[in-house]
Amino acid sequence: MSYRFLKGHGTENDFVILPDHDGTVHGDLSPERVRALCDRRAGLGADGVLRVQRDEAGRWFMDYRNADGSTSEMCGNGVRVFARYLAEHEGESFPVEVATRGGTKVITAEGDGELLTVDMGAPVVHGRTVVGVPNHTWSALNVNMGNPHAVAFIDDLDQAGPLLEGPDFDSGVYPEGVNVEFVVRRGPQHVAMRVHERGSGETRSCGTGACAVAVATALADRAERGTPYTVDLPGGTLTIVWTEDDRVLMTGPAVLVGEGTTDL
Amino acid sequence: MSYRFLKGHGTENDFVILPDHDGTVHGDLSPERVRALCDRRAGLGADGVLRVQRDEAGRWFMDYRNADGSTSEMCGNGVRVFARYLAEHEGESFPVEVATRGGTKVITAEGDGELLTVDMGAPVVHGRTVVGVPNHTWSALNVNMGNPHAVAFIDDLDQAGPLLEGPDFDSGVYPEGVNVEFVVRRGPQHVAMRVHERGSGETRSCGTGACAVAVATALADRAERGTPYTVDLPGGTLTIVWTEDDRVLMTGPAVLVGEGTTDL
Repeated sequence: MSYRFLKGHGTENDFVILPDHDGTVHGDLSPERVRALCDRRAGLGADGVLRVQRDEAGRWFMDYRNADGSTSEMCGNGVRVFARYLAEHEGESFPVEVATRGGTKVITAEGDGELLTVDMGAPVVHGRTVVGVPNHTWSALNVNMGNPHAVAFIDDLDQAGPLLEGPDFDSGVYPEGVNVEFVVRRGPQHVAMRVHERGSGETRSCGTGACAVAVATALADRAERGTPYTVDLPGGTLTIVWTEDDRVLMTGPAVLVGEGTTDL
Repeated sequence: MSYRFLKGHGTENDFVILPDHDGTVHGDLSPERVRALCDRRAGLGADGVLRVQRDEAGRWFMDYRNADGSTSEMCGNGVRVFARYLAEHEGESFPVEVATRGGTKVITAEGDGELLTVDMGAPVVHGRTVVGVPNHTWSALNVNMGNPHAVAFIDDLDQAGPLLEGPDFDSGVYPEGVNVEFVVRRGPQHVAMRVHERGSGETRSCGTGACAVAVATALADRAERGTPYTVDLPGGTLTIVWTEDDRVLMTGPAVLVGEGTTDL
């Protein structure tokens, strides 16, 4: 069976998009097919799959799958790429509403439309913890963005080392593991980060991680709510605002790079 | 500019295929475009690009590019994928002739056509050398298959360690670096290998490396010429015969997994 796909990325977090409005193309979409599509040598290669569906109310629904075939509630970089697909291939105009397992998200376009903004919800700040790599230990802020983060300010991003193993953390605080962000200052309201994602290792971008970093930095700065922060990641730059009404708005690129058919 | 591409792999050595018979689509095919296509996050992702061209004599020519944009003479896994493309999309029947910078190659199909065989030319066996990783040193055979190899028989493939750094070798013997193969016996005429390719690190498959391994094993076995060897690589299995007339014939899979358009 040959079926349609597209490929896209947001700050180098990359996805295979599968149009399947009524589910007749992929049915339950097996984990085996997701793994085959995401395989970076034998497949098309991606961090995850975004299946494009309509829910019972007729709204666009993002059926997000991780590369291992499991489902996730939401993905901040993925939902921007999903919205880009809707605008370029389904005739939608911004703002675009996308239903996800993590609730309905509204994606807006900035300026000339190159950058898209998504509301990532409210952060929950839990207090201080500790993370470490061989020969270094740092105090970190425990921030939850729907998933757990530990944000550590360090002197130099190289201090975190090769990050081939996951950083040490307090498993009493994070019984299900944690995403660890290492952050340095680049200027006023401007930081750079590296991230080690639980289950994935070091990645080129992590949307919720960048949000946690912006929240931790705003708190350290005692910044007024609404202050925009620029966050440089290995895969690109995100701009993040923690609003007065306690929402985290993330703005970044979303690019479609190809489309075609596959029988994977 | 939007243009056509296909994606395929041979033992998980993967390629973007660019049909461009007369060069009017891609002109000189810039290294920047090759790097953009091969980028595994922001592009389509591949180990290399196979541009499909016709040479002045009207023969199919494989314009092979490495992921960094540089050219190579030949690629044993790539030329099988190239031949698969010619059979499935250009109406060619096996055996197929493909001109490369490393000379003209004839690709034949085995059995039901799943496996393709390519003549990899004559090996040059130079004698013994030494390779090492932290805490281990082994004697190795210096075999040239158009490119230099050092083949070491070891007790267990894990002994070679994580191979994050290149193995140690004699830079007097290999002034331009070397591809190092670590080999274990699996049974009669059956070995398994890992390979560290110069410039690429450990890879899932290396066609010339598998040929060098088969030659070294046949010599160690004092095997009759024409004895087939099965070589297991992380990305799949190749069958290799060193013939009486001193050619190395490599047989393996070649699969196309998708096709479409991109404007990268």
